[in-house]
Amino acid sequence: MAPVKAAILGFGTVGQGIYTIVNERKQQLEKTIGTPIEIAAILVRDLDKTRPETPGVLITDRFEEILAIPDLKVVFEAIVGEEPARTYLEQAIAAGCHVVTANKVMYAKAAPSLERQAREQGTGIGYEATVAGGVPVIKTIDNLNLSNEVTGIQGILNGTSNFILTKMRKESCTFEEVLKEAQELGYAEADPTNDVSGFDAFCKLMILSGLSFGEQPDWENVPMEGIDALSLDEVIDADRQGLRYRHIADVRRGEDGSIQASVGPVLIGPDHPLYGIDGVDNAVAIETAYAGTLTVIGPGAGMLPTASVMVEDAAVLLRKHATFRELVTRS
Amino acid sequence: MAPVKAAILGFGTVGQGIYTIVNERKQQLEKTIGTPIEIAAILVRDLDKTRPETPGVLITDRFEEILAIPDLKVVFEAIVGEEPARTYLEQAIAAGCHVVTANKVMYAKAAPSLERQAREQGTGIGYEATVAGGVPVIKTIDNLNLSNEVTGIQGILNGTSNFILTKMRKESCTFEEVLKEAQELGYAEADPTNDVSGFDAFCKLMILSGLSFGEQPDWENVPMEGIDALSLDEVIDADRQGLRYRHIADVRRGEDGSIQASVGPVLIGPDHPLYGIDGVDNAVAIETAYAGTLTVIGPGAGMLPTASVMVEDAAVLLRKHATFRELVTRS
Repeated sequence: MAPVKAAILGFGTVGQGIYTIVNERKQQLEKTIGTPIEIAAILVRDLDKTRPETPGVLITDRFEEILAIPDLKVVFEAIVGEEPARTYLEQAIAAGCHVVTANKVMYAKAAPSLERQAREQGTGIGYEATVAGGVPVIKTIDNLNLSNEVTGIQGILNGTSNFILTKMRKESCTFEEVLKEAQELGYAEADPTNDVSGFDAFCKLMILSGLSFGEQPDWENVPMEGIDALSLDEVIDADRQGLRYRHIADVRRGEDGSIQASVGPVLIGPDHPLYGIDGVDNAVAIETAYAGTLTVIGPGAGMLPTASVMVEDAAVLLRKHATFRELVTRS
Repeated sequence: MAPVKAAILGFGTVGQGIYTIVNERKQQLEKTIGTPIEIAAILVRDLDKTRPETPGVLITDRFEEILAIPDLKVVFEAIVGEEPARTYLEQAIAAGCHVVTANKVMYAKAAPSLERQAREQGTGIGYEATVAGGVPVIKTIDNLNLSNEVTGIQGILNGTSNFILTKMRKESCTFEEVLKEAQELGYAEADPTNDVSGFDAFCKLMILSGLSFGEQPDWENVPMEGIDALSLDEVIDADRQGLRYRHIADVRRGEDGSIQASVGPVLIGPDHPLYGIDGVDNAVAIETAYAGTLTVIGPGAGMLPTASVMVEDAAVLLRKHATFRELVTRS
C-alpha cells in the first residue's frame, strides 16, 4: 500500500521527535493503520541552519510548497506562537488534510473555529499534545464524552511550576533559586513568564473546558495566579501541617449552568488525588458522573513524550479511514 | 434512526448498571454514535426473582431467545464464571454481534480464541471492564499499541487486597480483622479466595499481557502470592521505614524475549508510582518506549464505574460503524 504523506511544520525538539518516531515505527504503523506514514516535507524558518539529516525529505521555508504536495494527508504542527501556526492549519484543513498540533496557546483560542472547519471538511484534528504532553487526557475525556460525563477537572498542567513547588518544599529553596536551577536543567524557558504566571496552565485548561463542556468560560472571568504568588514561608508552613500547595487548574459547570474555572496555587491535604504528584510530572483528575474520579499522570513535556502522542493522534485519525476501507472491502 | 438492539446477560449489580446508563444516556448516545441503544432483552437465571422493572424488555432464562432477536447488534455479558459465559459469547459473535464483557476469569483464558473469532466475523470485543473496573487502562494501551510500545506494566489490580493492606498499615489491624470489615462493607466477597490469593489480579494481568505483548506467559510459570502471605508485623515494620507493601501484578518482556510476570506483595518506596494509592482504588503504571511511565488511577469496581466502561466500549464499537456510514454517505 502506498504510504500516507505527511509534513512537519517546525523542526525543533518536538518536530525532530515526530520524524524519529514515524521512521522507527514504520512497520508498526503499517500494521496498525494499514499504511506506513512517509514524512514528505518539513517546514523550517531558516534554511541555512544545521539540522539532522532527513534523506529524501523536502526541506522548505515556504508553506505553499508543502500545500502543493500531491496527496498530502497529515500536517503535524510543532511551531510556537499563534501565528503563522493558525493560518497554516486553516489552509491545511481547507486542503483536506488531518492536522495534529502541540500548540496550546494557539489552540486555546482557535479550537472552536478550527474544529468547525474540520467538521465541515470531513478531516480530523489531533491535539492530545496541547495538554499535559504525553499524558492521554484528551483521548480519555473523548471516550468519557460518548456515554459518561465529565463533571469537573483538576489538573497540575504545568510541569515547571510543579517542579519549582516541589523543590521549594523539599529543599527549602526560594522561588528564584529553584527557577534558576530549572532553567539550567532545561525544565524552564529563558523567559519563564508563561509557566510561572499560570498562563500556560490556563491555555490547557481552556482546551479541556471546550472538550469536556462544549464551551470555554469568558477568559476575563477566570482568576489566574502563578506560583510566583507564593512565598517560601507559606510553602514550609503548609508542609509542617502535612499540607501541600499545588498549582491547580480547575474547571467545572456551576449550579447555574455556567462554566467556573480558576488557575492558581491551592492548599491540599493527603486525600486529594494531586497531593502525591511531585517533580515535572503532569496529572489530571477527571471527575465523572459514573466512574468516580479518574486520575492520569505522566510526563507533561519532553521531545519523545510529546511527539509520541502526536504520531498516535495521526494514527487514530488515519485508522478511521482504514476502517472505512476495510468495511467497504468486506461489504 | 432505528435504535441499535442490545441484550444484557446477567442482571446483577453490573447488569442493572448497564440498563440504567443506557437509558439515562439515550440522547447522548444518539448524538455520539449516531443511533440510540435499546436494551431489547435481559438473560436471567431465575425468572421468579424480584427485580427492578424494565418495561418492554424481554426477560428470559433461555439464551436461544436472545440470539433469535432480529438485528441484535450488541451483547453485554455481566455474569460470573467461565461457563456458560464463554459459550454465550462465542454464539453471539458467530451471530454477528459485538460483545462487551466484564468477566476477567473467563476472558483471561478465552481472549485469544474469542479475539480470533471476532476478527474473522468482523465484529468487536469490548473488555475494558475486565481490568481495573472503571479505569480506562485497556483503551490507553490500545492507543499506545498504534505507534508507541508498552515495555512493562505494574498494577494494583485488586481493590480488596489494597483496601486490606491500607487498613493494616494505617490502623494496625490484622489481616483477619480487616477482611471481616471489608466483607461487611461489601468490598470483599463472602468467599474472598480469588481476591486475597492473588488470582483475581493474576487474571487481569494475563489480559493486560495479551493486549500489550500479543501473548500471555505460561500460567504455570507465573509466581503468584496473595496478601495473606503478609503478617501485620511486616506491614508495620515497613511503614516505620517509610516503605509500603503493595500487592503488585507485574509483567514485562525479558531480555531473552520471553514474557516475565509475577503477582504478589512488593515492598516499595515513596518514589514508586504506586506508593500513594490507598484504599479500594486500582492503579496501573504503564511503562512506555516514548512517553515514560503513564499511571492511571480510579475505582476498580462498583456498579456504575464498571457498567459505564461497558457502555463506553459498546459506543466505541458502534461508532466505528457510524464512521463507515458517515463516510459512505459523504463519498
